[in-house]
Amino acid sequence: MTLELIEEPAAWRAMLDACRTKGQRVGLVPTMGALHAGHLSLIRRAAADCDVVTLTDYVNPLQFGPTEDLAAYPRDLDRDCRLAGEAGAEVVFAPTTAELWPESPRTSVRVEGLTEVMEGSSRPGHFDGVATVVAKLFALAGPCWAYFGEKDFQQLAVIRRMVADLSLPIEVIGCPTVRDPDGLALSSRNAYLTSDERGAAARIYYALLAGKRAIEDDGVDDPQLVSQAMADALAAGAHFELDYAEVAHPDDLTRPKRVQGEVRLLIAARLGRARLIDNIAATAPGPTEGGIP
Amino acid sequence: MTLELIEEPAAWRAMLDACRTKGQRVGLVPTMGALHAGHLSLIRRAAADCDVVTLTDYVNPLQFGPTEDLAAYPRDLDRDCRLAGEAGAEVVFAPTTAELWPESPRTSVRVEGLTEVMEGSSRPGHFDGVATVVAKLFALAGPCWAYFGEKDFQQLAVIRRMVADLSLPIEVIGCPTVRDPDGLALSSRNAYLTSDERGAAARIYYALLAGKRAIEDDGVDDPQLVSQAMADALAAGAHFELDYAEVAHPDDLTRPKRVQGEVRLLIAARLGRARLIDNIAATAPGPTEGGIP
Repeated sequence: MTLELIEEPAAWRAMLDACRTKGQRVGLVPTMGALHAGHLSLIRRAAADCDVVTLTDYVNPLQFGPTEDLAAYPRDLDRDCRLAGEAGAEVVFAPTTAELWPESPRTSVRVEGLTEVMEGSSRPGHFDGVATVVAKLFALAGPCWAYFGEKDFQQLAVIRRMVADLSLPIEVIGCPTVRDPDGLALSSRNAYLTSDERGAAARIYYALLAGKRAIEDDGVDDPQLVSQAMADALAAGAHFELDYAEVAHPDDLTRPKRVQGEVRLLIAARLGRARLIDNIAATAPGPTEGGIP
Repeated sequence: MTLELIEEPAAWRAMLDACRTKGQRVGLVPTMGALHAGHLSLIRRAAADCDVVTLTDYVNPLQFGPTEDLAAYPRDLDRDCRLAGEAGAEVVFAPTTAELWPESPRTSVRVEGLTEVMEGSSRPGHFDGVATVVAKLFALAGPCWAYFGEKDFQQLAVIRRMVADLSLPIEVIGCPTVRDPDGLALSSRNAYLTSDERGAAARIYYALLAGKRAIEDDGVDDPQLVSQAMADALAAGAHFELDYAEVAHPDDLTRPKRVQGEVRLLIAARLGRARLIDNIAATAPGPTEGGIP
């Protein structure tokens, strides 16, 4: 099966309906294009799990703030299609905004509690835009398995919660972050980095590892101190403007009073034109509950 | 096929999926139970259009305000099942709140612009609750034809817009309001009326007709004057506490500057314990646009 490029929402739905009618499992990889090896790992995973894999390639204006990089966001549909096909996708859905939203949408989907902190705090309305377009893409795609990178960990948590709350017929699969050899998480926004900045960018990952060591090796259980360890490690490399360095429960993203069991460490920082985010898991040593403190 | 009562969301979805796999068209009639002849007309219409008809019978707490009548809302599932079966339904989905929302939902669906006026103004959050539960019921039911009464005209407009904006695989069918012989629109909340109040209640319909006559017979094209004509007609019967008497575009529910073409007239008023709403269409005489004023 060669790669099929579809622009029309109804045609995309009809094609995936036909696949399901044949008993095929549909795999969905929503992207904003500008594919990198992280996206390709999602496509390969979807191709391993599913009978037919469709990418969506759509730069969603709803999730960009008025001062953000919507116009500058990198786009190269031809290259995306070639890479997606090589990775195992059969269908690329790349609608225009006019096709997807013939009228400016009045409907929005909001996930409270998960969307006010971290990225939501720095980017008001961002997750409403994400949840709304993803709900729409899910509705068009129909029942499927949907693949998202852990790189956007908060987004993954928001989507999982939306799917559960609205009983959407979607199996959400979170996949590990893909990194360059020096540890920098792959992101389309890395394209904004100058070569000097690119040399320094992996420090975000080292700062996450510093937080992980504080928890796992040094037994630090005060989230404030873990955040400070990450901030200090980041500050050691000049040029970063820290937005947040957080410790959060992996499901509801609240900050724990004490670090227990598995937590997520998350950092956002500006480096030149780029705003970079990354996260990793860390697990506190010892009993997770009921133990002697 | 005898009537099947299903409480478990996954079982309901599986049953309707199986119907679609057999090529059957599914008809959906969402209700809060307390069925009356208005609901039954929706079921009969669905049964005429579709191969299998499912009712939902669920009093949705999300759409009740803290001071509203959630606890008092009439419930009689056995009677509902009997009436639904007689009208042509094959399946009644009546989940408990614990089954439908194992965790208290954080996700909400909002339709801006249609939900702030009229009922939305009097009942803050009401339409968010409606849109959210209907989105969830639609997701569980899967692709279907869904039947709603024009009695709740604003709700119908909100749902149509949500379906369009989110590309939900649902065909929304609006059905005419069913009235008692004296003109009172059927509503589960009519059960709150004392017999004296019931005798007076049809005046809401007469007030709508007064507005319609003002437009169609007297050529009144100032919405303010049409509203006043409705309010005056309602005030002639004591005991009503008017909430609103509005003239609105049928699609986006905005108030037109001048009455042109088809408009919707909508009234809400309290009568004793009950809050009653009703609406009808009216069409201005003459050219709808481009004519000499």
